[in-house]
Amino acid sequence: MKKRLCTAAFIFAAALGLSPALSGRAEADTKGFDLMPMPAKVVPAEGKHRVMEGFYVAGATGPAARAFKAASRFMFRLSGRTGLFFKQDFLLTQAASEPASLVYKYEKAGKLEPFEDEAYNLSIRPDKIELTARTDIGVLRGLETLLQLLAADDQGYYFPCLEVQDGPRFTWRGLMIDAGRHFMPVDMVKRTLDGMAAVKLNVLHWHLTEDQGFRIECKTYPKLHQFGSDGLYYTQDQIKDVIAYAAERGIRVMPEFDIPGHSTSWFAAYPEYASGSGPYTVERKFGVFAPTFNPTEEKAYKFFDGFLKEMAGLFPDPYLHIGGDEVEGGEWKANPMIQQFMKKNGIPDNHALQAYFNKRILKILTKYGKKMVGWDEVFQPGLPANIVIQSWRGQESLVESARKGYQGLLSNGYYIDLCQPAWEHYLNDPIPETSPLTDDQKKFILGGEATMWAELVTPETVDSRIWPRTAAIAERFWSPQSVKDVEDMYRRMNITSLRLEELGLKHLSYQAMLLRRLARSEAVAPLKVLADVVEPLKRYARHEHYTSLSPFTRFVDACPPESMTAREFGAKVDRFLQIKDQALAQDLNAMLVRWRDNHKALLPIIQGSPVLKEVQPLSEALTLAAETGIKAFDLVLSGQKSDQVWVDEMAQALAEARKPKAHAELAILPAVEKLVKASAGL
Amino acid sequence: MKKRLCTAAFIFAAALGLSPALSGRAEADTKGFDLMPMPAKVVPAEGKHRVMEGFYVAGATGPAARAFKAASRFMFRLSGRTGLFFKQDFLLTQAASEPASLVYKYEKAGKLEPFEDEAYNLSIRPDKIELTARTDIGVLRGLETLLQLLAADDQGYYFPCLEVQDGPRFTWRGLMIDAGRHFMPVDMVKRTLDGMAAVKLNVLHWHLTEDQGFRIECKTYPKLHQFGSDGLYYTQDQIKDVIAYAAERGIRVMPEFDIPGHSTSWFAAYPEYASGSGPYTVERKFGVFAPTFNPTEEKAYKFFDGFLKEMAGLFPDPYLHIGGDEVEGGEWKANPMIQQFMKKNGIPDNHALQAYFNKRILKILTKYGKKMVGWDEVFQPGLPANIVIQSWRGQESLVESARKGYQGLLSNGYYIDLCQPAWEHYLNDPIPETSPLTDDQKKFILGGEATMWAELVTPETVDSRIWPRTAAIAERFWSPQSVKDVEDMYRRMNITSLRLEELGLKHLSYQAMLLRRLARSEAVAPLKVLADVVEPLKRYARHEHYTSLSPFTRFVDACPPESMTAREFGAKVDRFLQIKDQALAQDLNAMLVRWRDNHKALLPIIQGSPVLKEVQPLSEALTLAAETGIKAFDLVLSGQKSDQVWVDEMAQALAEARKPKAHAELAILPAVEKLVKASAGL
Repeated sequence: MKKRLCTAAFIFAAALGLSPALSGRAEADTKGFDLMPMPAKVVPAEGKHRVMEGFYVAGATGPAARAFKAASRFMFRLSGRTGLFFKQDFLLTQAASEPASLVYKYEKAGKLEPFEDEAYNLSIRPDKIELTARTDIGVLRGLETLLQLLAADDQGYYFPCLEVQDGPRFTWRGLMIDAGRHFMPVDMVKRTLDGMAAVKLNVLHWHLTEDQGFRIECKTYPKLHQFGSDGLYYTQDQIKDVIAYAAERGIRVMPEFDIPGHSTSWFAAYPEYASGSGPYTVERKFGVFAPTFNPTEEKAYKFFDGFLKEMAGLFPDPYLHIGGDEVEGGEWKANPMIQQFMKKNGIPDNHALQAYFNKRILKILTKYGKKMVGWDEVFQPGLPANIVIQSWRGQESLVESARKGYQGLLSNGYYIDLCQPAWEHYLNDPIPETSPLTDDQKKFILGGEATMWAELVTPETVDSRIWPRTAAIAERFWSPQSVKDVEDMYRRMNITSLRLEELGLKHLSYQAMLLRRLARSEAVAPLKVLADVVEPLKRYARHEHYTSLSPFTRFVDACPPESMTAREFGAKVDRFLQIKDQALAQDLNAMLVRWRDNHKALLPIIQGSPVLKEVQPLSEALTLAAETGIKAFDLVLSGQKSDQVWVDEMAQALAEARKPKAHAELAILPAVEKLVKASAGL
Repeated sequence: MKKRLCTAAFIFAAALGLSPALSGRAEADTKGFDLMPMPAKVVPAEGKHRVMEGFYVAGATGPAARAFKAASRFMFRLSGRTGLFFKQDFLLTQAASEPASLVYKYEKAGKLEPFEDEAYNLSIRPDKIELTARTDIGVLRGLETLLQLLAADDQGYYFPCLEVQDGPRFTWRGLMIDAGRHFMPVDMVKRTLDGMAAVKLNVLHWHLTEDQGFRIECKTYPKLHQFGSDGLYYTQDQIKDVIAYAAERGIRVMPEFDIPGHSTSWFAAYPEYASGSGPYTVERKFGVFAPTFNPTEEKAYKFFDGFLKEMAGLFPDPYLHIGGDEVEGGEWKANPMIQQFMKKNGIPDNHALQAYFNKRILKILTKYGKKMVGWDEVFQPGLPANIVIQSWRGQESLVESARKGYQGLLSNGYYIDLCQPAWEHYLNDPIPETSPLTDDQKKFILGGEATMWAELVTPETVDSRIWPRTAAIAERFWSPQSVKDVEDMYRRMNITSLRLEELGLKHLSYQAMLLRRLARSEAVAPLKVLADVVEPLKRYARHEHYTSLSPFTRFVDACPPESMTAREFGAKVDRFLQIKDQALAQDLNAMLVRWRDNHKALLPIIQGSPVLKEVQPLSEALTLAAETGIKAFDLVLSGQKSDQVWVDEMAQALAEARKPKAHAELAILPAVEKLVKASAGL
């Protein structure tokens, strides 16, 4: 699960020297539209297509067709947003003979596999909207674009007239859900699929087995889910249901069974396949653990043959992910039989032993018609080039494997569990402009995947870690490379975030819910003021404190991974320091005063709830930061210059404020520090 | 579905002459505890049982047992509320040998059928908590009580020391979910089951077929779900999953297949069993429709034999509900063959024809081991007394059937879809103190059911119509008759409401979500101010405007069925008029000023969103009502008396304000009118 080493994304962002405000360089033609991901080409035209109760959708398909169902969902969502009572019974008929407002057409049903055609053309005219594509999947993508174009004026709702020609930059645009560390129920997976479809992601990578849980019903070896899951697993009927749900949204479902490491939960049922002597129970802690399959046991391959045969039959996707990451190695070293086997067969080290294991597994997969995908570590000498490497360690490994003719996916830099700001993910490109690859080599880069590792999330909080930041990543995978204006991305991402709620996603509503639980009251305004300027500690700073049974209902869990309020404040401070505008000054002052005075209102809430005790230092730090900011701000505004003693004092106070509290940190501090420096003329 | 006539509950409440503030008569011993439903007996004691990280639960059961799983959920919820990292691996072991904080014991696994023992004793001492019951279902009920007792002080969390002896007043405490008019996905049903368990309801009555949809996979006649559901139905695997989920929470699942009326969706597949000539398609409108099974067709009974055999095998509950309500009769009258059959067999009218049909169905049900339940209309001469009558029409029919030896359930007065205030449901008793029944006759009243008819709700909004008011109904079914202090009920219901959120229920979070969608912005405060004092039109005033494809995302859908803000305002006005307290006066003034000034802040939001246009008159009416209230309030406060001309003017203005707007009404008007009257010394 690629955690211990995953620093490259941070280094990458730092190396570019990018700050969110400065990083947008290319200007997309399409700015001004609230679209995400931005289409390849948008040509604005004159006029508006009015949306009224007579709005009618038509296509030459029946109710069983994917496009028909997608059009029905489109109409429900359009009705939900506009409050319009459409006259059409869009569940019953979408016959093209009617006088239709929106007509969709396609040539054939798309296949759910890489390189399928997802392009579409959308033409909005005052009298008619036409959506054409080669496949029905293209129609689905176009319907999402159209819905994003809905606008309003004094007369009501309309679609602006324009022409869109669109298709994806990368064919593999994934989101990985880790259901191993915390089980994610079917309804979470389904609403995630809806969100993915809305931003044109097309691969659900389903991480189904981990040290902490074996999450899928296995009919060949039922002890696997019976002993390895605490009762929390997907039945095969549920798996089929999810696959069908995804397929209706034009999304592939690729399962991952992580072997030979990350496999403690398997050994709760079958210790005989482990390299150590056990006993094994489902892991509760997080990290990299010793239990590993024994690659020298012939019976293990018979076991995998049975297992993978069943899973290959269950999942129709041509690809199957075998994990392969972070093999700890201790059990191999400690097992004399394994050491003897290695010596006998000329296997020099653990890497080579894993390569041997992978080759055996690949043979089984090939037998059952699946292509193999694995994390970085499966890229080892001797493996054939028809496997796909998913890079979690960095751009370098992706470049290296592409040069050797391996297909690859980038996940490094898209670890959405680490609470990085959206712009860092957004500017992380599977094929950066500086890529050393030749055009032919670049073709091996299929795309990328955002990864939602689940140490610190539950079904209650997980949406807030996925959305809306994954929409920015989805744009990176879909839109032209030149679309990278960070400011405009944030503007569009925040609009997109609101729209995603209509799909049942909880990334916005969960916060007030958690705050009410913490405060044991509906009066949570001061708590929300604080939560909105606080971010969870980033990277792996929180992990060691938790197990899979820990509560994820504390204040830090209610704080968004990226504070949009702090971002707004930072942008205003930057602008104020440039132009010293009066309205801006008032605005900033109001923000700072609100933060300064918040503690008084918050204190009674904290005192009424023991679980909030840890929040008090954080709230006091906000007051301190706000007071400091106000003083610095006043100095800047008055044109006075603060003295060095004061600046040093403030720097020290802010250093104290910067220390992690309640597993969280104040997100407004960098901007306050800028004010302090500016007050000293620095 | 008993809609057109359902006025009795309103008449009942009016007849009692009850106002929320005056209706509490008996004082429960247990006041002061935040419990709902209130236990039969609570004896407070000295001391506190501290909850810390070492808190440990133990019972003599293994992980597969219902009580073990319930104890695991208890620990998760306790951890979620307290933020405590418990040391126990409560998923793995709850062995009694450990030094346990909480020990649960029971004699046997409870059966899921009426009259099973659900009683429990709970003893909380500083060193140990003991929960004992005859069945594991009793343990489940006791765990919910214990969790509700969680309290906090300066030192942290604790359970107060006390003894509880508790058991239900009624054995049948149900909630009916109508999945026919709007399909309710499995996750909605599951979170509802969790909410039910939290307030000790024990029957999910699942209304699975309606004119608007046939919502269950039928393997014998697959055309039923294929043609009758628009693809929205439960698979049998999902049904089994829900039944198992309910069983783990000590809840029965009784299916309803509504026949011979309310059955249009069946005829989309099988027009040959209808009494008319068709053609039939799934109904989109709401109301009572003509399509009805033909009771004179022998082949229909063969069909039902196959259908009910399959369903009797799928649902383990001893009871099966056949609906039987609102047979429109038109198709019977218009069909000469049916008229001929009636003449030939001496069947005088449609009621008798339905009785004939019911007898035939009863025979089939009996054959497959099920007891029959039906709405009022199935109570007809000639039917054996082993059927259960569910009364939707009123107390009278329940009394009548009990006198004749039929078991009965009260649903009249518990129609939670009609947006009545909680107190009206709460004071509605299945066996009122004034009941004319003898003690022996009273035994025939098994309990009651709240009914969530689904014309106007979707999975997004339905929780807000069920919760928290259903908690008050649950208390009526569980607690002693003497527990009926309305003020204390509201206090406890609002606390319960907050707790229900931890189960994934959306009754609180949905509002902000809908408001954000309406406003297309996160800045919804003024919209919320308005929504919090507005209630949807009650009873059937909204129904005719809607179909099952209509949007339920407008402002009215974001308004709670009962405004707690208006209730609080009303209570303060009452108290102010009695005692003229200064602090109270300030409080009231602040509320009124806030409402008066809200329109200015709201107007830009309304103007930015065409769907909010309809809200403008409602917002203006709030301003008017608040201005009127302020004037009247000032007059009362100053001791001046307003003149009659002004009072008449105000009455007229308020009458205008009282008119329905945007399918909603202002809930603060009655209290404002009181102020106006008081200002004139009336």
